[in-house]
Amino acid sequence: MSIASPIRAALMAPAFALALFVSASADQADPLPSWNAGENKQAILDFVTSSTDKTNSDYIEPADRIVVFDNDGTLWTEHPMYTQLAFALDRVKALAPEHPEWSTTEPFQSALAGDMQGLAKTGEKGVLQLIAATHTGMSTADFEAIVAEWFKTAEHPRFKRPYTELAYQPMLEVLDYMRDNGFKTYIVSGGGVEFMRVVTEEVYGIPSEQVIGSAVKTKYEIVNGVPQLTREAALGFDDDKAGKPVAINAVIGKRPVAAFGNSDGDKQMLEWTAAGKGAPLMMFVHHDDATREYAYGPAAGLPGSPFGTFSQATMDEAEKSGWHIISMKDDWSEIFPPEQK
Amino acid sequence: MSIASPIRAALMAPAFALALFVSASADQADPLPSWNAGENKQAILDFVTSSTDKTNSDYIEPADRIVVFDNDGTLWTEHPMYTQLAFALDRVKALAPEHPEWSTTEPFQSALAGDMQGLAKTGEKGVLQLIAATHTGMSTADFEAIVAEWFKTAEHPRFKRPYTELAYQPMLEVLDYMRDNGFKTYIVSGGGVEFMRVVTEEVYGIPSEQVIGSAVKTKYEIVNGVPQLTREAALGFDDDKAGKPVAINAVIGKRPVAAFGNSDGDKQMLEWTAAGKGAPLMMFVHHDDATREYAYGPAAGLPGSPFGTFSQATMDEAEKSGWHIISMKDDWSEIFPPEQK
Repeated sequence: MSIASPIRAALMAPAFALALFVSASADQADPLPSWNAGENKQAILDFVTSSTDKTNSDYIEPADRIVVFDNDGTLWTEHPMYTQLAFALDRVKALAPEHPEWSTTEPFQSALAGDMQGLAKTGEKGVLQLIAATHTGMSTADFEAIVAEWFKTAEHPRFKRPYTELAYQPMLEVLDYMRDNGFKTYIVSGGGVEFMRVVTEEVYGIPSEQVIGSAVKTKYEIVNGVPQLTREAALGFDDDKAGKPVAINAVIGKRPVAAFGNSDGDKQMLEWTAAGKGAPLMMFVHHDDATREYAYGPAAGLPGSPFGTFSQATMDEAEKSGWHIISMKDDWSEIFPPEQK
Repeated sequence: MSIASPIRAALMAPAFALALFVSASADQADPLPSWNAGENKQAILDFVTSSTDKTNSDYIEPADRIVVFDNDGTLWTEHPMYTQLAFALDRVKALAPEHPEWSTTEPFQSALAGDMQGLAKTGEKGVLQLIAATHTGMSTADFEAIVAEWFKTAEHPRFKRPYTELAYQPMLEVLDYMRDNGFKTYIVSGGGVEFMRVVTEEVYGIPSEQVIGSAVKTKYEIVNGVPQLTREAALGFDDDKAGKPVAINAVIGKRPVAAFGNSDGDKQMLEWTAAGKGAPLMMFVHHDDATREYAYGPAAGLPGSPFGTFSQATMDEAEKSGWHIISMKDDWSEIFPPEQK
C-alpha cells in the first residue's frame, strides 16, 4: 500500500485534514535538516523569516523574491572537472571514429588521451574548438537529445553515481525552503544553458525559464519545410563574472534579494545583489571537505583549482562585505542525497 | 464603502464563502466579454478548454503552458507611431537645450520638427542615433526612472489618454483567461525590453521576467563604489522576425503552445509555435477598424504602414497555415478599457 492512501483518506474528512494541518504547524519541522546548527544555517532561516513577515522592516513583496544560484560547485559538484567538460570529452570519444585527424590534432589529441595538462595548454582557443566540435552544428532539439542520452549512463569517476545525483543535499533543502516561502529560484551559471536545462527540473525542480547560462548563437531556419534553431560555432553569451549581473538584468529585470556562489566567477553577482535595498543575503560555498567531497580554495593549506577558482582576493572581499562563507566540512551534515537504488 | 468589504465579510463565514463559490461555478461567466461570438472567440475558448482537460488528447501539462504575445499592435495601439518612438521624440525635445547642434543635424532636426517623413529618410542609421541619444549613456536605474516619469504625463495624440490605458480590452481578457487556466503569459516584442518593463505589470499583469524584447548592451561597472549597469550605445539584441524564436529559446527554453502577433515581425514566432506538438493556437490581430482604432494591412482597400507592417505574403501564409485572423471591427465589441477617471 502506498503511503499516499491514508493521507488521501484523511484529506477527505475535513476534520482530520484540519487536525493534520494544525499538527504540522505545531511541529515546526526543520526545513534545513542537513545543515548543522550555526551562523550560516541561522542566517538562511533569519533571512526567510524576516523577508516573509509583513510586520518586519525587511519584508519583501512576493514578486520581488528572486534568488539566484550559481550551479557548478554551488548546487552540484564541479570536480574533478565541470560536468559539461566530462560530457564534451565523452562526445569527442564518441565522434572520434568520424575524425581520424583528431588523433594527431590538438585539442582533440589531449581530450582523447584524457590528458588534462595537455588540454589546459591549448587554452581558451582549445576549449572553444572542443565546444564547437561537440556542442554545435546540430539543432537545439538534437543537442537536447544527445545530452539527455549522455546523462542516462554517465557516471562520476569518484562517486560512481550519475551526475544528476551529485547535487548538494543541503542546497536542495535551501531551494525547497525558499520556494515554499514564495521565492523564485534561478540558476545563473557560466555553464551552457541548453546543457543544464536538460536536467535542472529533475535535479533541482527548476524549470527551463529559470535557468540562465552561457550560450552559443542559434540561427532560426527552415530545414526541409520544418522550422529549427541551429546551434552555431560562435559564443552568443558568456555568463561569467560581470556577465552574470548583465544576464540577470536582461532576463529577469529585477535585482536578486539573495545570491549563492562559490567562486571568483560569482563575485559580481553577489556584489550586484549586495547593493540592493533591504537586507540581501550573500553566501559562498567553500569546498573544504576532501573526505566527503573536495577541498580547494583560498583557505590555509588548500590547493587552488582551475574549476571553480576561489581566490584570496574574493575571500577578502566576501569577509570585508559580511558575506557568509559556508564550510562544507562544518556546516553540512550530509553532502549528497541518499543513493537512489 | 468599498465593494471589497461585503466580500471580505462573506469570506469570513465559511458557509457563505462556499455558497459564493458554488454560485460562481454555476454561473459560468463569459471569460471574454469583449469578444463577439464567432470563430475566433470560439478558437480561444476551445484551445483553453481542451488543453486543460486531462482526458483530452490535446491536454498540455501546466509547466508547458507558455503563451507569447507581441506587444505593439497586438496588446496595445501602435499608431500613429510606436509608443517608444513617441517617448524618444519627447526625450529629444527635453534634451534639445543641451544640444543646440541638433536644430541643424539629422535625425534630430526632423525629430524636433515632428517631421516623420524627414525622420524616415534618415533610415536605420537615424533611428539608431535617436535611440543612442535618448536611451543610452545612463544607468538602467536612471533609464527606468526617466521612462516611468514620461508615462505619468504622456498622452496619445488621438485618444487623449495615457498610453498605459490603450491596451486592447479583449486582449487583456485573453491574458487573464489564459493565466486563470495556468498559462504563463510572455511578451515577446521588438520594442525595448527595459522600456516595456516599466509598465507591463501595471498594464498587463506581466512581471518583468516574462518580458522579452530588444535590448542595448549593458556594462557592469563600479561607479563611486556602487555597482551599476550602464546602457551603452550598441544594439545587444534585435527581437524581431527570426530573432523572436531565437529569444524565446534563449530565455524560456520551451516552445510556446500559443502565439499572438499582428505583423510581419511576428511571422517566425507563429511559425515556430505552429511547428510544435499537439494543437497550438496561432492568431494575428488585423487592424481593420479606422473608426474605433486604425486600419492598415493587406486587406483590400487598407493602406500599408511602417509601424506594424502586415504584408500580403504574411496574410497568405497565415491563411494557408490555418492561423486565425482577428478582425478588430468584427471580433471586438470594445477596443479599450473604460476610462479611468
